[in-house]
Amino acid sequence: MQTSLKIAVVGSGLVGSLLAIYLKKAGHTVHVYDRSPDIRKINFSGRSINLAMSNRGWKALDGVGVGDAVREIAIPMGKRAIHLVDKLNFQNYGQEGESIYSISRGKLNRKMIDLAENAGAEFHFEQKIWDVTLSDATLHIGESERGEWEERKYDMVFGADGAFSRIRHRMQRQSMFNYSQEFLNMGYKELNIPANADGTHKLDKNSFHIWPRGEYMLIALPNLDGSFTCTLFMPFEGANSFESLTDRKMVEDFFEKNFPDSIEVIPELANDFFKNPTSTLVTMKCFPWTYEDKIALIGDACHAIVPFYGQGMNAGFEDITVLNEMIEKFGDDWKKIFSEYQISRKPNADAIAELSYRNFMEMSTKTADEKFLLQKKIEKVFSDKHPDKWIPLYSRVTFSDRPYAEALAIGDFQNAIMDEVLKLDNIENIWDSPEVENKILELLQNA
Amino acid sequence: MQTSLKIAVVGSGLVGSLLAIYLKKAGHTVHVYDRSPDIRKINFSGRSINLAMSNRGWKALDGVGVGDAVREIAIPMGKRAIHLVDKLNFQNYGQEGESIYSISRGKLNRKMIDLAENAGAEFHFEQKIWDVTLSDATLHIGESERGEWEERKYDMVFGADGAFSRIRHRMQRQSMFNYSQEFLNMGYKELNIPANADGTHKLDKNSFHIWPRGEYMLIALPNLDGSFTCTLFMPFEGANSFESLTDRKMVEDFFEKNFPDSIEVIPELANDFFKNPTSTLVTMKCFPWTYEDKIALIGDACHAIVPFYGQGMNAGFEDITVLNEMIEKFGDDWKKIFSEYQISRKPNADAIAELSYRNFMEMSTKTADEKFLLQKKIEKVFSDKHPDKWIPLYSRVTFSDRPYAEALAIGDFQNAIMDEVLKLDNIENIWDSPEVENKILELLQNA
Repeated sequence: MQTSLKIAVVGSGLVGSLLAIYLKKAGHTVHVYDRSPDIRKINFSGRSINLAMSNRGWKALDGVGVGDAVREIAIPMGKRAIHLVDKLNFQNYGQEGESIYSISRGKLNRKMIDLAENAGAEFHFEQKIWDVTLSDATLHIGESERGEWEERKYDMVFGADGAFSRIRHRMQRQSMFNYSQEFLNMGYKELNIPANADGTHKLDKNSFHIWPRGEYMLIALPNLDGSFTCTLFMPFEGANSFESLTDRKMVEDFFEKNFPDSIEVIPELANDFFKNPTSTLVTMKCFPWTYEDKIALIGDACHAIVPFYGQGMNAGFEDITVLNEMIEKFGDDWKKIFSEYQISRKPNADAIAELSYRNFMEMSTKTADEKFLLQKKIEKVFSDKHPDKWIPLYSRVTFSDRPYAEALAIGDFQNAIMDEVLKLDNIENIWDSPEVENKILELLQNA
Repeated sequence: MQTSLKIAVVGSGLVGSLLAIYLKKAGHTVHVYDRSPDIRKINFSGRSINLAMSNRGWKALDGVGVGDAVREIAIPMGKRAIHLVDKLNFQNYGQEGESIYSISRGKLNRKMIDLAENAGAEFHFEQKIWDVTLSDATLHIGESERGEWEERKYDMVFGADGAFSRIRHRMQRQSMFNYSQEFLNMGYKELNIPANADGTHKLDKNSFHIWPRGEYMLIALPNLDGSFTCTLFMPFEGANSFESLTDRKMVEDFFEKNFPDSIEVIPELANDFFKNPTSTLVTMKCFPWTYEDKIALIGDACHAIVPFYGQGMNAGFEDITVLNEMIEKFGDDWKKIFSEYQISRKPNADAIAELSYRNFMEMSTKTADEKFLLQKKIEKVFSDKHPDKWIPLYSRVTFSDRPYAEALAIGDFQNAIMDEVLKLDNIENIWDSPEVENKILELLQNA
């Protein structure tokens, strides 16, 4: 057991709540602050893609014994349902029994706060943190940025306050703080597929649904109540863009033409489209993540990524797993804990940012591409036969806890090999032949 | 003549002052704000590399008729003096008569403020701008960030307030604002070579002096009073680093060993070393640079670069040239002026950032490398003979006003050609032969 400290966690989101449970179980006093009201007491308004929990997320939850409570609100998705304009294909994500899990962000957040409160963390909602004194972990709280502030001193402050973190904001003003934020020229908008009258799902419940259309795409993830949360990703400007769809008829015509099988399952299409906001997508990187033994950033506050690999929450939860490993290793030496945490984690945060950015292309374009689907089939056959020699990139990211940076590097290496393999004569017909298998073995050997 | 506006320029540095002259001559009311005292009334304390004014800087100054006033305080440097441990080499920067110009930042800034005041701009010193309302160009001014603020409304605000711009700070909080700041693991420290007793220079006056040593280097630029401003660039940490030199003897031994010919000309070496601060080096990029027709960033406030190409001030001054071109083209349509200014300027700002970053290697390593010096000689011979076919990269950046982005692209192309040329057998002896000339012509042809 560590020496008990008085710790503030800023942000009562998923990462903040789970971190509070870990810290509480390690014997600390934990106060969680959030500028918003208690999400359990308000009608949570969407504006969030459903979450896809995978291996790294579950590992962090199970590490503190709360995985099963979360499994109750999760729906397994073992495959992609790929809606082409004229047909529907399915593609398994991994091996038999391997799934990612659809969870509503609102539901999960409420549950995580309940679990953290049960563990003994104290939550302070509607408390606006405007600044932090780095050297002595003092929070500055007040009604407004220009009004009166009050000070709360802690032994340590965690910034789990998301991509626009106030805690990071103070660190950014330090010299030698590296920082970047880059927005995509693409936004997203939430739409809704309601349940059937009998509460069943209108589309296959255990699939992650994608309508890949190149520059834009629609996705849908199942909810427990029979509905699906849909998300339309599209450029802000240009030919097929949010800007170009200016009235109800244009939206309906656009969906009719491009997502014909979605029309009958999204009854409120035009209403949702004009009522729901268009949200932005940002990649944020920074370093350092910590200040002495006083301040540490975690989750989106230090590495916000675009959602196309479904790894945002998983990466944030894995931060906690790594932090906890360092705590177990270095005991009360928080300087060492923070320093090892950020050094070990930074390259992996950069790698999942890169993989997530690239994956928009895979989801929106390649899943509709015959060559890509052939590559996936070849990889699957080879990987089934030589599981020690080939873990597909998606599986390494999603169904393992190997470092993201390793996944990125090995994924690039595998793609180079598959580029060679796909050049083989008549590959469409010999893709599952010993010839192809031997070619891959040879290329692996020569590397 | 444009419709007369009430314009605030935040920042009374070089770019802010020159911009004020341009705006004043275009008929506007111009108020320049600075949080610091009037630099003309204080003892300016160094912490600044001397400036190297080149073509782009002069063009902007001459464009508003103040070039000659600045030439009075400038010293031409036509060559690099390369101090190897055991010998001294010289290398011309360009053609006969082409020079860059050493100017003291403090001297130049005082002169620019005088010139701007003479032109009718009003300066408000020791006025701290804490915030700006983007939509109506209102400045918020006060003694302290948390104290009382007063509002000053303008038609338009320019942020010429440097790499840590407060005006940009507000824009950064807007959605879709792309931003990055990256610090080098290297810092710099100012040292001093005083004049001889008779006021003459201790080293060649018309040279830019470099002591290239790979990971670190020393440079010296002449001042009017016979002294040189020296700057030591070195990693913060590691074998040869600021951190590693902890006492007077270590500093003196280090210089004795690595910069032997500098020892007798820097009498206050150890004093300067421990008295002067170690400064950081940052590259900052952002976009957009403007907000509607109300706010525009200019100079370091929107593109801070490392100093290794001597182009920081030149690039900032060229922003003004480009802005002025847009003003002449689009009259009172400030939305158009701002939009064209940022679109035209951004790729060039990115290019000079990249060139500046790369140029540390050229200065600190390649200037001591025989192969590199040979390449320069070959380029020189070819360029003299075919000036229409080959402008060396350094000349294009320094002695022309062709866009930086073009210089970067053509420079990469030229380097690829020279890589081929340097592979020729016996190149050390045939470098000025017709064979080499024809090889280059052929490679240019085939591109």
